[in-house]
Amino acid sequence: MAAIETEADFAAWMGVVQARVEAALQRSLPGTQHSPARLHEAMRYATLEGGKRVRPLLTFAAGELAGAEASRLDVVASAVEMIHAYSLVHDDMPCMDNDVLRRGKPTVHVEFDEATALLVGDALQTLAFQLIAERRLADDAALHMEMVRLLAIACGSRGMAGGQAIDLEATGKQLSQAELEHMHVRKTGALISAAVKLGAMCAGPCAPALEQYAHRVGLAFQVVDDVLDAEASTATLGKTAGKDSRQGKPTYVSVMGSVRAKAFAEELRQGAHEALAGFGACALRLRQLADFIVLRKF
Amino acid sequence: MAAIETEADFAAWMGVVQARVEAALQRSLPGTQHSPARLHEAMRYATLEGGKRVRPLLTFAAGELAGAEASRLDVVASAVEMIHAYSLVHDDMPCMDNDVLRRGKPTVHVEFDEATALLVGDALQTLAFQLIAERRLADDAALHMEMVRLLAIACGSRGMAGGQAIDLEATGKQLSQAELEHMHVRKTGALISAAVKLGAMCAGPCAPALEQYAHRVGLAFQVVDDVLDAEASTATLGKTAGKDSRQGKPTYVSVMGSVRAKAFAEELRQGAHEALAGFGACALRLRQLADFIVLRKF
Repeated sequence: MAAIETEADFAAWMGVVQARVEAALQRSLPGTQHSPARLHEAMRYATLEGGKRVRPLLTFAAGELAGAEASRLDVVASAVEMIHAYSLVHDDMPCMDNDVLRRGKPTVHVEFDEATALLVGDALQTLAFQLIAERRLADDAALHMEMVRLLAIACGSRGMAGGQAIDLEATGKQLSQAELEHMHVRKTGALISAAVKLGAMCAGPCAPALEQYAHRVGLAFQVVDDVLDAEASTATLGKTAGKDSRQGKPTYVSVMGSVRAKAFAEELRQGAHEALAGFGACALRLRQLADFIVLRKF
Repeated sequence: MAAIETEADFAAWMGVVQARVEAALQRSLPGTQHSPARLHEAMRYATLEGGKRVRPLLTFAAGELAGAEASRLDVVASAVEMIHAYSLVHDDMPCMDNDVLRRGKPTVHVEFDEATALLVGDALQTLAFQLIAERRLADDAALHMEMVRLLAIACGSRGMAGGQAIDLEATGKQLSQAELEHMHVRKTGALISAAVKLGAMCAGPCAPALEQYAHRVGLAFQVVDDVLDAEASTATLGKTAGKDSRQGKPTYVSVMGSVRAKAFAEELRQGAHEALAGFGACALRLRQLADFIVLRKF
């Protein structure tokens, strides 16, 4: 009974955060009454009503643990989600993954056109930095600037964009587990870590234990993604399933096999819990999110 | 004799700044010894040894006028040039202008591949924000954060990326002069203005007269670009000439005719000089740059 209540309570908390973030994104994205209307329409299409908002949920959970103001978390969560949305738009383009379906809808270059998709990604990245810079997110100005820097490092050539480049080069190759981890820590892990750390930083410097949690959850997220890509259906995922193996991309499933990949994800989930041990009950949402990320759909 | 000396002196100053900026870019761009090597190689290819560095020259001229430290100007000039380089890489891609030649070399997607070009642009944009955030550029922390915000606004959907989107929509259409200005103030003007303002802000808040100068020079730059595209050769430009008219793009030449476009550029040049009147001799470099931008090659 207690478990069921906790689960219902977690679902309700997720719903509240998701609605807050949707409203914050609505406010932050330029409206179609502003020129260029079509670009703004496509930026909204790419960002609004999409996905589970895993990164914003992590931002809020870490921020609530640290005691951050919700209005600051709105800004950080929106910026991180815009970066994520930009990366999806560019990754889906014909010269990258050439995908037509995302979050159950046609991808931006299909619904609009390729040139617009390119500019949507470019402008969403810029807007994320604008948001982070134009609101007061930390009492200490140096910490605020550190947040800008941290987001940039997470997204750049040694973070998310770099992970994507490694992914491109790895297609058709056999990678070791260490090489796969090197890739995914950048491609997915860096932004997920940033989501956690930036949430905490809205209240002050981020505790090292939270960084450890973020690293493990970020990696677990990708391992589970690989398993789902191999095992789930396109309808369940809202994006094209099974494409990693068809494209010859190394994944945790191709490198370790499905059984060991699931065990690895479980190990990372437990490691994430361990990292939170010192926080006691305050870290409930972060624990629940680690479970949610790893236990979704398998 | 005095005029010749001044000209030689200006050329020497440009050479010094260009060499400084090249060195600063060399230092700021990740080396190919870091993974992913191919992405870093392509980022360097796209940015180094290229162009006249008009934006960095403006940053230095404005910064020297305001009394800024040269080491700060190195950072701002590098960031602005990275944003410019990113925009060229993305604009040259097949889904945009589909161009094969830039700064006398094959474009990034030709020399590398399209996916790499996409990621090069993405990562150069991020690196620009990282640079601006990680060095101390203003004594006042609020002014420093304002510099991040200003750069973001200049690049985003209501700045450079927005201007590019308007440009796409305008292809094949007849625009009025006011509509053309609306487009170019965003597409080229916004980043050129930012280059001037950010240079001055390294020493303190930017004087309104400098903003006026920046606006006029930014617009003049585009008018001259349109004239050169119509009249100069590919060899002189180092990029494909005459492509605007072939692509049916409205330009100052197509809207006003070549003679009136040149007269408009001259008017803007004089307006830029007028904006500088209050600064006296200190504004010599900015005056020379206005002349350089407008009087180059016609």
